[in-house]
Amino acid sequence: MTPEEFRKLGHQLIDWVADYRARAGEQPITTHIQPGAIKAAFPAEPPQQAESIDNLLGDVERLIMPGITHWQHPRFFAYFPSNSLLSSVLADYLATGLGVLGLSWASSPALTEVEEVATDWMRRMLGLSDAWSGVIQDTASSSTLVALLSARERSTNYGANAGGLQAQERPLVVYGSAQSHSSVDKAALLAGFGRDNIRHVSTDAAFAMHPAALRAAIEADLAAGRKPCAIVATVGTTATTAIDPVKEIAAIAQEFGLWLHIDAAMAGSAMILPECRWMWAGVEAADSIVTNPHKWLGVAFDCSLFYVRDPQHLVRVMSTNPSYLRSSADAEVKNYRDWGLPLGRKFRALKLWVLIREQGVDGLQARLRRDLAQAQWLKGEIEATPGWRVLAPVPLQTICVRHEPAGLSGAALDRHTLDWSEKVNRSGEAYVTPAQLDGRWMVRLSLGAHLTEQQDVEALWRTMRNCAET
Amino acid sequence: MTPEEFRKLGHQLIDWVADYRARAGEQPITTHIQPGAIKAAFPAEPPQQAESIDNLLGDVERLIMPGITHWQHPRFFAYFPSNSLLSSVLADYLATGLGVLGLSWASSPALTEVEEVATDWMRRMLGLSDAWSGVIQDTASSSTLVALLSARERSTNYGANAGGLQAQERPLVVYGSAQSHSSVDKAALLAGFGRDNIRHVSTDAAFAMHPAALRAAIEADLAAGRKPCAIVATVGTTATTAIDPVKEIAAIAQEFGLWLHIDAAMAGSAMILPECRWMWAGVEAADSIVTNPHKWLGVAFDCSLFYVRDPQHLVRVMSTNPSYLRSSADAEVKNYRDWGLPLGRKFRALKLWVLIREQGVDGLQARLRRDLAQAQWLKGEIEATPGWRVLAPVPLQTICVRHEPAGLSGAALDRHTLDWSEKVNRSGEAYVTPAQLDGRWMVRLSLGAHLTEQQDVEALWRTMRNCAET
Repeated sequence: MTPEEFRKLGHQLIDWVADYRARAGEQPITTHIQPGAIKAAFPAEPPQQAESIDNLLGDVERLIMPGITHWQHPRFFAYFPSNSLLSSVLADYLATGLGVLGLSWASSPALTEVEEVATDWMRRMLGLSDAWSGVIQDTASSSTLVALLSARERSTNYGANAGGLQAQERPLVVYGSAQSHSSVDKAALLAGFGRDNIRHVSTDAAFAMHPAALRAAIEADLAAGRKPCAIVATVGTTATTAIDPVKEIAAIAQEFGLWLHIDAAMAGSAMILPECRWMWAGVEAADSIVTNPHKWLGVAFDCSLFYVRDPQHLVRVMSTNPSYLRSSADAEVKNYRDWGLPLGRKFRALKLWVLIREQGVDGLQARLRRDLAQAQWLKGEIEATPGWRVLAPVPLQTICVRHEPAGLSGAALDRHTLDWSEKVNRSGEAYVTPAQLDGRWMVRLSLGAHLTEQQDVEALWRTMRNCAET
Repeated sequence: MTPEEFRKLGHQLIDWVADYRARAGEQPITTHIQPGAIKAAFPAEPPQQAESIDNLLGDVERLIMPGITHWQHPRFFAYFPSNSLLSSVLADYLATGLGVLGLSWASSPALTEVEEVATDWMRRMLGLSDAWSGVIQDTASSSTLVALLSARERSTNYGANAGGLQAQERPLVVYGSAQSHSSVDKAALLAGFGRDNIRHVSTDAAFAMHPAALRAAIEADLAAGRKPCAIVATVGTTATTAIDPVKEIAAIAQEFGLWLHIDAAMAGSAMILPECRWMWAGVEAADSIVTNPHKWLGVAFDCSLFYVRDPQHLVRVMSTNPSYLRSSADAEVKNYRDWGLPLGRKFRALKLWVLIREQGVDGLQARLRRDLAQAQWLKGEIEATPGWRVLAPVPLQTICVRHEPAGLSGAALDRHTLDWSEKVNRSGEAYVTPAQLDGRWMVRLSLGAHLTEQQDVEALWRTMRNCAET
């Protein structure tokens, strides 16, 4: 493709995305396609000769769009908001068009230095002290894995440099809560701790970790000759946005010398609001934090921020230094390859920088406050309606709800919940997520898609009532 | 930013990238900016109010471009080609504009099914049998980490589900060569094996792994009570594109029951050429393969392909299955979150699909053959010129070279090598990578940038002679 052909097709694609986003609310949110149907429309063999892609958009409409769930739809209340704001889309495209790679500072200095600037802007926006250093990772799964690897190496005095985890005499133990994200268990398993050495500390009525139960678990492990290593505290759990008590947990981490990682993947965005920062009070005593601007905040996926207080330790755990990547500037610069898993890195800071400038802190704050208000409105409506129940506190934008008609309980109630949520999703009018809480099905409503206005939340509530009450 | 504002700025950005790529050869390749200079031009504080980004391109020209090394330049011979072909840039942008996320098949079925189609097209293009299943990861660093985690769990009969690596009685050992990529050591360290349990098997005069030395190392570890676990064989090493003898290594892996991972991150692209497939003869006996279409082949970063022969094992190692991600389709579909580290996944298959269609297998083959021919031409010129030496076989597109004036050796020769390569890079006429081979500095010329034509290779050679011989 020549630059002139690129220009022609590129202008079409700009218009297509502009139209797609402008009409975002006009189409059914979800697809009801059968497994395998998309795949079946493609040839099994790749084309030997070049094919014209002049009609790429026709092919996309025909082959791809029937299998798309529209995450940018104003009535997308499933999973979590994965906002991909248009300024950020353009900046991401610009990074791809530049086609530069960060293997080292020298391989494209602006890539590294804008990442320093943008992660530091975010640090200030989140109200964190200047003791924190940030880096962009792909997802919270990776950030949490890096955190637990860092914890493992600190606990073993860099055991990786000798016999590794397999040479440890006392098994290291990781602590999360029963409400921690699945990526915490996954990270602990991949880091080699073993399922026997992962503790799911019990939670209180608000689904937040019990500090007393945490302490008891640590003491039991110590008594049994095991070695407590790391705690993952969640600020805004996936199921209910529960808030683990960071301050009490941090005190326990310090008392026993454990690494404390804060998983604020979703809720961290809300820390740009001073009125929300009570949710992670005590965070300055943690060792690492993950928060994902590619969720609620609006940076196009992928952009997960990982902050640490001791970057030298991180670099010691993650570094590689082959000769072909060395440069005379190494003593003066950051080489972010040593701050995470991959060697090659895209210029992801561009989309974070552009989004913050285009929205301003004020603009980002206003949108998040809108979402918090809309969640409180919907919570009020649900609580005021007989037969409906809000199952957990609503500190942020997620509401856990059940419709509990008289006489229904147990498995029958589960069937009713799955049935009405399926009806909502089939309607194409709104998209919600059924999930389990304390072993029973409920429906999670995750507000915060950037196009979601009050009228959309009202439409959601009407659709829920129609589907559940009839 | 409204869709209409997006449209306006988007058209500007399409034209800007078209112009940038059209003029790619007209500017100096590298930047000579001082560490910290880019950062210093940005305000320390994020903007409170929204800023106009109407002049985004002016800001990019002023703030960013002075710190860019131009990877898409026709005389970029450093590191490795990270080709970001224009059709792939547009497809990546389209994926970002759609803003959909793959948490599960149901979260956007087309994302998963096009990934199945595109990875299977690539499998056929690479000449692999249908016993292989593919998935897109971000980088070879991650793919190799996933491979070693899979090996670890197979060797321990899913030890992660019990006491983890720390419960193993006999230390597991990983084997690479002295020429393996730094990401192999990094993956082994992060997976918890420990530096004591990583073997760097010696290589022959062509820098390829000695099978006899591999066997001896395995037998020594067995005799010492350790447990050999995995071998990483490299097809196309980073320093010299050396070719480890896969067939002999595979026989040893099978004899001793070890996992065999093939690192063909760079050279795998050449396997679309039937005449190159001798390089990985025996690959069907391996357990996993990584190859990066985001390098020589031309897919915009990031797109690393990971193939396995036993996807059920992979899923068992990597899976998480929280209730909110379950769907009625799970038994019939692939959930790629269980094939790698991150939960959230971008629609990366789109750019691979579009590139293959736009180029055709013929087009991709023709470009790679052009690069192989250009490398042979340059190798011939260097070998025919007194005082110059090619240091390693040139099976692909990388040439390792030294200018060895009479009377220079040891540290003085190293100084000369670093001096003339620095002169080449300062000239802006070509960009090359100094690296170490057998403890001495040499210069790596990595051909294969998509705009590199014969005249560019000739210009490189002139520049090298000018800088080294005067």
